[in-house]
Amino acid sequence: MSQKKTGGLAGVIAGRTEICTVGKKGAGLTYRGYDIYDLADNASFEEVAHLLHHGCLPNADELSAYRERLKSLRALPSVLKQALEFIPADTHPMDVLRTGCSVLGNLEPEMDFSGQRDAADRLLAAFPSMLLYWHRFHADGKRIETSTDDDSVAGHFLHLLHDVPPSELHRRTLDTSLILYAEHEFNASTFTARVITATLSDFHSAIAGAIGALRGPLHGGANEAAMELIERFDSPEAAEQGVRDMLARKELIMGFGHRVYTSVDPRNSVNKRMSARLAEEVGDERLYAVSEVIERIMWEEKKLFANADFYSASVYHFMGIPTYLFTPIFVCSRITGWSAHVFEQRADNKLIRPGAEYAGPSLRAWVPLAERG
Amino acid sequence: MSQKKTGGLAGVIAGRTEICTVGKKGAGLTYRGYDIYDLADNASFEEVAHLLHHGCLPNADELSAYRERLKSLRALPSVLKQALEFIPADTHPMDVLRTGCSVLGNLEPEMDFSGQRDAADRLLAAFPSMLLYWHRFHADGKRIETSTDDDSVAGHFLHLLHDVPPSELHRRTLDTSLILYAEHEFNASTFTARVITATLSDFHSAIAGAIGALRGPLHGGANEAAMELIERFDSPEAAEQGVRDMLARKELIMGFGHRVYTSVDPRNSVNKRMSARLAEEVGDERLYAVSEVIERIMWEEKKLFANADFYSASVYHFMGIPTYLFTPIFVCSRITGWSAHVFEQRADNKLIRPGAEYAGPSLRAWVPLAERG
Repeated sequence: MSQKKTGGLAGVIAGRTEICTVGKKGAGLTYRGYDIYDLADNASFEEVAHLLHHGCLPNADELSAYRERLKSLRALPSVLKQALEFIPADTHPMDVLRTGCSVLGNLEPEMDFSGQRDAADRLLAAFPSMLLYWHRFHADGKRIETSTDDDSVAGHFLHLLHDVPPSELHRRTLDTSLILYAEHEFNASTFTARVITATLSDFHSAIAGAIGALRGPLHGGANEAAMELIERFDSPEAAEQGVRDMLARKELIMGFGHRVYTSVDPRNSVNKRMSARLAEEVGDERLYAVSEVIERIMWEEKKLFANADFYSASVYHFMGIPTYLFTPIFVCSRITGWSAHVFEQRADNKLIRPGAEYAGPSLRAWVPLAERG
Repeated sequence: MSQKKTGGLAGVIAGRTEICTVGKKGAGLTYRGYDIYDLADNASFEEVAHLLHHGCLPNADELSAYRERLKSLRALPSVLKQALEFIPADTHPMDVLRTGCSVLGNLEPEMDFSGQRDAADRLLAAFPSMLLYWHRFHADGKRIETSTDDDSVAGHFLHLLHDVPPSELHRRTLDTSLILYAEHEFNASTFTARVITATLSDFHSAIAGAIGALRGPLHGGANEAAMELIERFDSPEAAEQGVRDMLARKELIMGFGHRVYTSVDPRNSVNKRMSARLAEEVGDERLYAVSEVIERIMWEEKKLFANADFYSASVYHFMGIPTYLFTPIFVCSRITGWSAHVFEQRADNKLIRPGAEYAGPSLRAWVPLAERG
């Protein structure tokens, strides 16, 4: 048995995938062979979901049917709504989605793998419903109707959040953000989903585990941390001084660098353009400028580039999305990639079970209780 | 960056551990340097839990305090009990524990990592309560009191299940089984917990993910499959014929072989001895004999040895435990090992993010919707 020591499995190939490339030549991102810039400029999120799940873009009839199908899956079972009402108002909304996913798996279990696409579509349609039903219940005391006529996941999300259908600018901005976050190869949450799937467990177990992984600040939690950083400064000048001070104190600054990309995160330029556009719309003279200063300093001082989490923070903020809902948006998007990976893992499965280097005590003799100090 | 292709990460070292060795010389199992046979013969499960969590066996005062502490953590919050009542009676109980763990994380979140030992003890004490509250509510229509005076997790479990404190033989048998299942290095569920933990996510996310992985038939689900197999045959003779027929049809037979052990699973001899003792107690003339025949044929025909899941099936059955509660017992035990690995991962953390071999389409040009076939 050949063995290789690694830290965090960096550079170790854990399996094959036909879904995505990340960081080819240090920079690129493709879904099923399509460049992320083509998808961000031209596709809708529902086309991307179809692409990830089926391997090809839908034609007009397929896309229309898919949109109708997702619309039909937005209502929540009453037991799930009751469970969401019981979850305390100060719970982290990622933990709400983890529980919501698990409860939906109790109420609508995947009986066998032939139903996996139904489970995937249901979660894609229902995550915004779960999240915003819980949010509005605790924030506004309202039991909202989660079925809407919006044609898109992005429209549905913003409609439930603000109680009115969004402007086309906001809808399209969130749509694009969902595209950017939809898939990213063997990132920690997707890898979690594959490890769980590889025991031949069920769909909801894989996704609940993935949500748990995405929750961590070293993964999806970074855009919330980026927002907290940006909001800390009243002006670009204060940010310049503040970030230099943080670096001098060796404090961790979230939203920069990446395990796989080495020179640039291709999603950043799209986010930055959207952030600039929305800053103009809302008349912001602070947050976008502060973001630009932080981005410049991080490059000058640390040669670290902004990743997908950095400008998405201000993008969401400008659309009136509370900071603590940022990472849950990531779930509403990445469920498409996670699902594609569950399908792929199941199609050619092998248990994922690595080894460990033992660094503990050598064999010890048993000591009876009465003789222990 | 050096890269290595693997299937299921077999033989790849994914990290260091001081907790456990599995399969040294193809056979051994140690927890913190103690041989599994010494632990099975001499220790209580609570001593093993302390050993795994703290690295050393407790002295008499520490053990007594630990037992009292676990006793004090058996009551469930009323919201959790309501949630358990809502989960349908035909739900897989592993999915009940996944939801129960997630809901407990909503109600009693780990605020920061300094509270991690509290979270671990709480789950260790509360998993039998959750499982059996749900089970008895749906099976008997009773809302049971989950706080008992039993000194051990094993006694608590059997007391809640059967509504009376167990015999010392049954209590000690389950206690030993919990010891055998407590820890197993980087198995799929523990590895899941470490991947989730490595994003710096919370304790309940890691454990909910681990439960999801353990649920799969290639992992913890094997003892249920073993029971279904054993029960299928009316006599040793029928088993002999039936299993040979299954092998001829290349059907998968669960409870045999192992990814890491190559010659023997050290836990099997302990389970087999306990199964024989209980078969004698209940006057069984069928299930133990059938098990022995299957074990013999699998060795003769496939050179596969019985693993920890095979005889634990009849052990649990003889104690009146319904088959669908077998894998949840694994959770009630393995929570100790999972917790130890969460502590260890956090103490020297690095994001676990492997790479993938890309086997999908090369770069493709965007095709507008109207031009798609």
